[in-house]
Amino acid sequence: MADLTYISGEIARLTDEKIVGDEDRLAVEEPLEIRVGKQPISVTMRTPGSDRELAAGFLFTEGIVRSSTDIATLTGPNRDLPNVVSVKLRRGVRFERARLKRHFYTTSSCGVCGKTALQAIAVRSKPVLSNMKVSLDLLYSLPRRLREEQETFEETGGLHAAAIFDDKGDLLYLREDVGRHNAVDKVVGAALLSEKLPLEHHILVVSGRTSFEIVQKALIARVPFVAAVSAPSSLAVSLAREFNMTLVGFLRGRKCNVYAGRERIAGSFQQL
Amino acid sequence: MADLTYISGEIARLTDEKIVGDEDRLAVEEPLEIRVGKQPISVTMRTPGSDRELAAGFLFTEGIVRSSTDIATLTGPNRDLPNVVSVKLRRGVRFERARLKRHFYTTSSCGVCGKTALQAIAVRSKPVLSNMKVSLDLLYSLPRRLREEQETFEETGGLHAAAIFDDKGDLLYLREDVGRHNAVDKVVGAALLSEKLPLEHHILVVSGRTSFEIVQKALIARVPFVAAVSAPSSLAVSLAREFNMTLVGFLRGRKCNVYAGRERIAGSFQQL
Repeated sequence: MADLTYISGEIARLTDEKIVGDEDRLAVEEPLEIRVGKQPISVTMRTPGSDRELAAGFLFTEGIVRSSTDIATLTGPNRDLPNVVSVKLRRGVRFERARLKRHFYTTSSCGVCGKTALQAIAVRSKPVLSNMKVSLDLLYSLPRRLREEQETFEETGGLHAAAIFDDKGDLLYLREDVGRHNAVDKVVGAALLSEKLPLEHHILVVSGRTSFEIVQKALIARVPFVAAVSAPSSLAVSLAREFNMTLVGFLRGRKCNVYAGRERIAGSFQQL
Repeated sequence: MADLTYISGEIARLTDEKIVGDEDRLAVEEPLEIRVGKQPISVTMRTPGSDRELAAGFLFTEGIVRSSTDIATLTGPNRDLPNVVSVKLRRGVRFERARLKRHFYTTSSCGVCGKTALQAIAVRSKPVLSNMKVSLDLLYSLPRRLREEQETFEETGGLHAAAIFDDKGDLLYLREDVGRHNAVDKVVGAALLSEKLPLEHHILVVSGRTSFEIVQKALIARVPFVAAVSAPSSLAVSLAREFNMTLVGFLRGRKCNVYAGRERIAGSFQQL
């Protein structure tokens, strides 16, 4: 479905006072509705492609399903409903609407604050115990490998990428989307559907910034190591530290910042 | 509240095999709960500061309030509830939960598709008629002016900015946030609360990419001209074209791409 990630459009390119009519490629953005049974539970603006993985990953990172066997069938999109994926849960798996994150925070007891959000997560998750190590050379190679594998970004500048690498540096999954959280749900969903979860010896690499939501999704998939090309938010760092994860940002060239879990980076460091 | 936009944290900076302990500034991300009466209607991960503007802008761009007089009182955040803003609507203004966008798409009749989303918007909005003109010099100066005014980005790399300029190039509002949509809601909310809406002779400038959601918020505030430093999505371009808006992307140096509404750019162009 790679042909769905961009469309061509006519634009005008200006340089100083010069104007040229041209074709441009645009990252496709369309709504995807996820249904459990017949009930719509979420609409997300996403880039078409890997929609079933996106739906599976969303249900998993939201805590609605806990394994691929919790999903009885996963259907769509199809010609009649090009932007709908329907999920039938295994008999006995109850869909609790209150589990959805957007209700999740609002029902936490002591009002809404950063600490509460972390505490609420703590109810569902335990700290990551993985003792995986990532060499400096592997770490520094990740952004280049992400770019090499990423098909669309160079052309449109409009897509985020997320990828899962193992601790030997082998790429398992790479997915692109206009939404960062969707790109992560797609790789987690791919891992879920191919029975690769938990990802305890793996690295999640993202092309942009890391928010709380990205680190939370990694945690639920038990990914111990998150590496990003840009900055993390304060709450992303707090969450990584609280749950013993490694969080790297500004990974560019042979440089990076380590915000949490430095012990998972192997190398003969020269302490300055 | 500018001191709430970042916090300091201890990190390790790696360069090749050299490691230095250092302080870093992180963009603050915390949940904000928006309540109408006592009912929580939304939780968004945002950067603290301008929270009442964010709540007002959210209610406006979601179509729940139509003018500042629809809002009777706007309170919070306070020490007890640092991440809650409560809105009391004017007597006679009904809060229809179905108006919230996340329900909005799902209730559209013919399934979920890009076209439907546009059609659903069309029910609520009319094309922009503004005949404002923006000179090339003004257009090309906007990213620099955004950066100059933007306090935090240079330090953390983690915040999006949105700004409203008038057609003479005067800056009305600039706000920063970890979430693009929040930065836009903050500037729209600021305009709403200072009785500056509709913004029919104004430019919305955003520091990153333009999604459908960003253009939609501009449309509801009646902003005819949206200019962004990075790429638009396909649906952002469709929406701008459908509603007679101007949409500019990749605005860097003295270059840009014009995706819609070129007639609002004034200049003696040299057609190539």
